[in-house]
Amino acid sequence: MTIANKQIIYANTPSPAIDPSLSTGTFKLNTSSIPDHVPDNRVLVRSHYLSLDPAMRQWLTAKRSYIAPVERGSVMRGQTIGQVISVGKDMKNQFSVGDWVLAYSGWQEYAVLGAKAVQKVEIPPGCIPTDAMAVLGMTGLTAYFGMTEVGKPQPGNTVVVSGAAGATGMVAGQIAKIKGAKRVVGLAGSADKCNFLTKELGFDAAINYKDKDWKKQLKDATPEYIDVFFDNVGGEILDACLARAARDARFVICGAISQYNSAKPQGPASFMTVISQRVTMKGFIVFDYENKYPVALRDLATWLTQGKLKRKEYIIKGGLEAAPQGLVDLYGGANTGKMMVEVTPLTEAIGTSKAKL
Amino acid sequence: MTIANKQIIYANTPSPAIDPSLSTGTFKLNTSSIPDHVPDNRVLVRSHYLSLDPAMRQWLTAKRSYIAPVERGSVMRGQTIGQVISVGKDMKNQFSVGDWVLAYSGWQEYAVLGAKAVQKVEIPPGCIPTDAMAVLGMTGLTAYFGMTEVGKPQPGNTVVVSGAAGATGMVAGQIAKIKGAKRVVGLAGSADKCNFLTKELGFDAAINYKDKDWKKQLKDATPEYIDVFFDNVGGEILDACLARAARDARFVICGAISQYNSAKPQGPASFMTVISQRVTMKGFIVFDYENKYPVALRDLATWLTQGKLKRKEYIIKGGLEAAPQGLVDLYGGANTGKMMVEVTPLTEAIGTSKAKL
Repeated sequence: MTIANKQIIYANTPSPAIDPSLSTGTFKLNTSSIPDHVPDNRVLVRSHYLSLDPAMRQWLTAKRSYIAPVERGSVMRGQTIGQVISVGKDMKNQFSVGDWVLAYSGWQEYAVLGAKAVQKVEIPPGCIPTDAMAVLGMTGLTAYFGMTEVGKPQPGNTVVVSGAAGATGMVAGQIAKIKGAKRVVGLAGSADKCNFLTKELGFDAAINYKDKDWKKQLKDATPEYIDVFFDNVGGEILDACLARAARDARFVICGAISQYNSAKPQGPASFMTVISQRVTMKGFIVFDYENKYPVALRDLATWLTQGKLKRKEYIIKGGLEAAPQGLVDLYGGANTGKMMVEVTPLTEAIGTSKAKL
Repeated sequence: MTIANKQIIYANTPSPAIDPSLSTGTFKLNTSSIPDHVPDNRVLVRSHYLSLDPAMRQWLTAKRSYIAPVERGSVMRGQTIGQVISVGKDMKNQFSVGDWVLAYSGWQEYAVLGAKAVQKVEIPPGCIPTDAMAVLGMTGLTAYFGMTEVGKPQPGNTVVVSGAAGATGMVAGQIAKIKGAKRVVGLAGSADKCNFLTKELGFDAAINYKDKDWKKQLKDATPEYIDVFFDNVGGEILDACLARAARDARFVICGAISQYNSAKPQGPASFMTVISQRVTMKGFIVFDYENKYPVALRDLATWLTQGKLKRKEYIIKGGLEAAPQGLVDLYGGANTGKMMVEVTPLTEAIGTSKAKL
């Protein structure tokens, strides 16, 4: 027997923005057919949620980077949370049908994967499967290492986070508070997001960068300047924060979502402050801290179950076909929290009781 | 009795470039008269050489910086090497007539100074008084700490220095070689400067950034990318080097001479590389390493007398009046080596024999 497998293929180089049209745009829809009987050293995984991440735009650019670009004509790269639905003979010691896994499956409903591309997920009590792709996944880990290993907020410090209502930013800001920062300020793109940051996540202040006077608000919100800046946005926001850098400030360069779709990227014009205030700007990639994942995940799960760290998901319905538009909306700032595409509803999950999810 | 004292006064804010005219420009000439009998807690210093430094443009801007701006109407700030010609009663235990001193005298022929503004200079065997303002002064120390404390070249590393024929750059590149860098590449603004770097200072390659194909030359000269970039220039050069950054590169942000006179400073557009290659960019100010000056000066003097470190001076004749044009020429890249203005020729020095100088 075979299974019909919906896939999203990377078809055309963005120029420079992603075009979400599935007929003429960056991606196209394909339906392949895969046998339900998997080879001995493989598992068959059914995707439930696909993660949409700001880094994806970079994966479509054939530039020297931390990861090879996606090749045109192949399934778009992406991480999903899903369930094992069939296990090859040699994999039975590691996997069982119904296991929840984090899979480098790409943008498709089903994937036949070897041991390296699939990772069994332990769902800690009080946690849910999608946590493994959010707070307890790449975004949470990125926030954790960026803040604890690069930013290193000290008690008394002022910490500013850009893209603060995004998946990584919201965790980064909360970790800064947990680590004893005196003042955590978030930058986000709407009044609702700002409310969410201060009312629900405990940020000390939040600034809507779409307000005309946002730079003045930033100044007022950082009376003792900025000791740590956790940047997901780049461009003008990085520039404004650089102008507010405190002596010996640490600038964590995590992302630059404002620049990914730009044909002419813009560097920080207030660069002179790097010298006068002895600023350290450091880029990092979460994979470099792999040997420390276990400790980080233990901390994150503890904070999550203690309620010190709050999760927020932004789930896109409509199946895989909705993913390209979702990605465009991600760059447009539509989401508060972790953006995911529901590929297969949890109601169709096998084995696990719905109540537990 | 009184002494006629020629001074250069900071008169008008540059807009944005320095105007060297002494009648209508940034500075004006003044002659004050000072008594040759100094107060008990002061010394009278006669300047011989005035240091001209890229940082000077920043001192004329009323922006938050590492040092307060110079006030209009006051003597322009600057460091000189000179001789003590009169000593107040309470200073006689520290100073004698004829002592060579490094003085925060400003742009003037004579200065009455307290103990904090004047520092007796020991001239190591084989060294000359002006060394105290160059290789054994701020520029040498800046190169030393920028390279050893921030850049930290490792054996096998490729090191690139911009403004490499300038006072700091030429020392920075030589230190990189001394510290075992595999390949040291200089960026400078003329074929003569490039020749000087490779033929006289032992740089492995030098690139004239005024050549049309300088970016290609930079690529060819850094086949293993750039591990350490010591930047004195900023702007387009920083940008091109960022695009060539190796994984975990250290970018020493020492200066940005290309931007000091710019009304619209330009940030590095290749900023994404900071993330993908995990680059650390760090600004620094030499004063922060003050407690390590003795060790640094011992190293620098040793290398200098051993011939491992070569000095190069660029001395402007014509007295103090020539200083404003000299400063403009400094930003124009006229000098190879340390730029100084001869305020009083060494032939007029007291006590010390000319042969020794």
